[in-house]
Amino acid sequence: MNDGSYDSRQAVRPVLIAGAWQTAASSETFQAYNPATGQKLPEIYPVSAWPDLEKALAESRRICQEVASISPEKRAVFLNIYADLLEKNQEAITTMAHLETALPLKSRLRSTEFPRMINQLRQAAAAVEERSWCQATIDTKLNIRSKYGPLGGAVVIFSPNNFPLAFNAVAGSDLASAVAAGNPVICKAHPGHPGTTRLMAECLLDALEEAGLPASTVQMLYHFRAEDGFHLVSHPAVAAVAFTGSRAAGLRLKEAAEKAGKLFYGELSSVNPVFFLPGILKEKAEAVALELFSSCSLGCGQFCTKPGLIVFINDEAGRKFLWRLQQIFNQPLSGYLLSPAVLENLKKAVDKLKASGAVLLAGGNQIPNCGFQFQTTLFAITGTQFLQNPETFQQEAFGTLAVAVVADDFEQMLKISEKLEGNLTASIYSSGSEQDEELYRKLEPIIRLKVGRLLNDKMPTGVAVSPAMHHGGPFPATGHPGFTSVGIPAAFLRFSARYCYDNVREDRLPEELRAKNPNGRMWRLVDGHWTQSDL
Amino acid sequence: MNDGSYDSRQAVRPVLIAGAWQTAASSETFQAYNPATGQKLPEIYPVSAWPDLEKALAESRRICQEVASISPEKRAVFLNIYADLLEKNQEAITTMAHLETALPLKSRLRSTEFPRMINQLRQAAAAVEERSWCQATIDTKLNIRSKYGPLGGAVVIFSPNNFPLAFNAVAGSDLASAVAAGNPVICKAHPGHPGTTRLMAECLLDALEEAGLPASTVQMLYHFRAEDGFHLVSHPAVAAVAFTGSRAAGLRLKEAAEKAGKLFYGELSSVNPVFFLPGILKEKAEAVALELFSSCSLGCGQFCTKPGLIVFINDEAGRKFLWRLQQIFNQPLSGYLLSPAVLENLKKAVDKLKASGAVLLAGGNQIPNCGFQFQTTLFAITGTQFLQNPETFQQEAFGTLAVAVVADDFEQMLKISEKLEGNLTASIYSSGSEQDEELYRKLEPIIRLKVGRLLNDKMPTGVAVSPAMHHGGPFPATGHPGFTSVGIPAAFLRFSARYCYDNVREDRLPEELRAKNPNGRMWRLVDGHWTQSDL
Repeated sequence: MNDGSYDSRQAVRPVLIAGAWQTAASSETFQAYNPATGQKLPEIYPVSAWPDLEKALAESRRICQEVASISPEKRAVFLNIYADLLEKNQEAITTMAHLETALPLKSRLRSTEFPRMINQLRQAAAAVEERSWCQATIDTKLNIRSKYGPLGGAVVIFSPNNFPLAFNAVAGSDLASAVAAGNPVICKAHPGHPGTTRLMAECLLDALEEAGLPASTVQMLYHFRAEDGFHLVSHPAVAAVAFTGSRAAGLRLKEAAEKAGKLFYGELSSVNPVFFLPGILKEKAEAVALELFSSCSLGCGQFCTKPGLIVFINDEAGRKFLWRLQQIFNQPLSGYLLSPAVLENLKKAVDKLKASGAVLLAGGNQIPNCGFQFQTTLFAITGTQFLQNPETFQQEAFGTLAVAVVADDFEQMLKISEKLEGNLTASIYSSGSEQDEELYRKLEPIIRLKVGRLLNDKMPTGVAVSPAMHHGGPFPATGHPGFTSVGIPAAFLRFSARYCYDNVREDRLPEELRAKNPNGRMWRLVDGHWTQSDL
Repeated sequence: MNDGSYDSRQAVRPVLIAGAWQTAASSETFQAYNPATGQKLPEIYPVSAWPDLEKALAESRRICQEVASISPEKRAVFLNIYADLLEKNQEAITTMAHLETALPLKSRLRSTEFPRMINQLRQAAAAVEERSWCQATIDTKLNIRSKYGPLGGAVVIFSPNNFPLAFNAVAGSDLASAVAAGNPVICKAHPGHPGTTRLMAECLLDALEEAGLPASTVQMLYHFRAEDGFHLVSHPAVAAVAFTGSRAAGLRLKEAAEKAGKLFYGELSSVNPVFFLPGILKEKAEAVALELFSSCSLGCGQFCTKPGLIVFINDEAGRKFLWRLQQIFNQPLSGYLLSPAVLENLKKAVDKLKASGAVLLAGGNQIPNCGFQFQTTLFAITGTQFLQNPETFQQEAFGTLAVAVVADDFEQMLKISEKLEGNLTASIYSSGSEQDEELYRKLEPIIRLKVGRLLNDKMPTGVAVSPAMHHGGPFPATGHPGFTSVGIPAAFLRFSARYCYDNVREDRLPEELRAKNPNGRMWRLVDGHWTQSDL
């Protein structure tokens, strides 16, 4: 790992453009924070000015066709080598991530998130090599054949603050998907963890070179101004944008990108409602209260799938449940918020909830003088309050904060469900016996149309990387409810165009569409039948 | 077929809202033209004011959940009954379509377009019943299951002028797909053929009732103001918009829809370039010139896949080819333009080409006093002219109009291909022997990234309805290069959300995701293997 021109801790870190670490065109700099102390870390990173973005765009355009022509095998080699190099540097990477995010080193970064990141890269490699993801479809009589292929422009990835490894712009699910699908990539690091991103980008550059891919297949900038971001996502060299972050910032980027005809995949916000039907709270209120707290406080409440809205009925079991929740949420907290911005946003959310008449049952205050800490916080409102003000009570805020909505009765619970915005997930907890079944059958059809992933008796955190996983949902949770950002190979489809070949001569077809199955393992839809055979 | 309140030829036709023909809220009216005479037809149709749109939206919202719960079998029954009823009324429908569009009754409307429309509805019915389209994906170990399902909001369909039957808002591919996928639909008829649309909508209402679907599953308005259209596509009750029409109108709707978080599928324009490599013109210039003319003049040049840009090299064979094209394009024309608007647009396009220095080789003038007719028109420009002004020479205009781009050499042909915008199709004609092979291998990778469907030795008109067909392409041909508007069942996916079920109890799963394959025929991806078996 060698970043070339950098030679002093006080110098500004170079950016990765056109296959080399270059001094940034920059008149501004920034530093990351150590959330555990609240102090800035010493390393200095550039806020790139437009010339950096322009250089990266020109390079992406230059290599776009070459990247599209890289064989699936070679793409897989790169992804695997990259995973290997990251693993070799696991110690340095996770230590840096811990410093920059204060996420627990052992339980979270080393044992969970780092392996998840590696697993994603390896799964992507396997899926690329297997080739079924491109959904080769062949109509033999008409000689029309189609498959998914590269977009023909760069994919720009904006990564979030909350997963410095598994959703990092240079190594996460979006990166793996965009490269797997054959596109050049321009990454914007999250300014909360630039050092982590730098260490991984160094591995990335080595992996590109070792695998024989163009060294500029993936480029990385640490930061740039919002205005430059709008120009970037609407530039002719760009085909698609993947954004994970705040709804306000995401919607502005979405508008700029879509106005210019670019694809925009945004993961924009979600409160992940959890409904408790009456039976389950009679049966095991204590267990589910603990389960809820555990999910809500995971990563200090900084998961996009954090259960932030809890709905149950004001019966005896419901009141006991709320009482118990209040006790649990009043326990001393552990963990740090990722940045001053997260802290400020959480304070504002609390103030807004208070101003809107929600009752504070636990927490509600910053913990001063020890990094970015905020009390574990629980609010309660009545179902009527929710129905009077549904937008206010559905605002996502990172931090261990939940709003309990106590419905008068099941009819009101249904009305509440109808007022939900699009969400990534919703959970319905119900009795192990049949007693909640009728209610479930009334509630589920409403919920189903409003979320990507519907869970039974399970909290929404923990998003497995598997083919059936769907991490997406109706607007405003994401921009398109048909696409997922997690789950391989489905996540590749965001960065793919459909390629149709009509009457094209056999030896000019891509391997996936020729008579012979390219590897004997690839699934193809031939005349309406899925098969691994040759034609 | 009975449209209720209508009782006089001078009365304003009612609109189809909430399952009944209702008097429109309207202060303006319009009449369609007979393109063969240039005269207005007598029937009077309303330009709906906002209250009509609002009523339709409220009704779509009211029935959205009910429509989503209609079984696949029942949806298929509706589509088949609708096809039957249309067939029973074929005579009246095609006669009206002929009157309103002047498209040839026998060769086009009765023998080609009507059967295509019926075929699409029946293919959609079969695909819905078979269920494979929803791409059921099951990970048994994790108990995560996914499939495509309804969007949870209305689909709004804006249909084009050029296919009064097969792409009609109330009976075309978009309608079949949106209903098949389980969504309520609001159709905007094209004002060029309101009578045709009315006759079909009458069948539609009967079919909905006979099949036992909510009678308001599909609603239809004839026309409304542009401003009301923007409000419509951004309304909370709407989930997606399908638009086929002009780029200017489409982009304005796209912006309004996307800003509100709605899915917008637009087919916006395409010049469908045809490249002739040197060998083919030596071998059979005469045959391909006739083939080109035949495709270009199909439907009087009013196909979205009309070959409008022809690229070849200035060698002896190329010059002969152009000479021959000039003769062919100078033949007397047959056919009518669809409307005064198409005529005006074509005149403007001709004026612009002239002003930009293109040489007029054939046609170029309106034929007065006999309906909407315009001469068959051919322009020529040099490759250098194209490269100096690529946008001007890529403007779609309906009518039998083509621009021949004569490149200095193959290198210039490559440069021309690099300046192409996103298109629905591109064709490459090459020698039957190996002599063009090297050139093909250089040209194809550039073209591939810019079009949806790539053809060899074949003109782009004729878009088969088959699973591998892709009728789409990169922006600005469409809004998303991964989706197709033709090709069943792929076209359904535009109007579908991904539904994920995490740990959901077996008897609460949709049939497609339970252990038992619902019909023994449906393909499902179970633990990475496509199978028709039960779990």
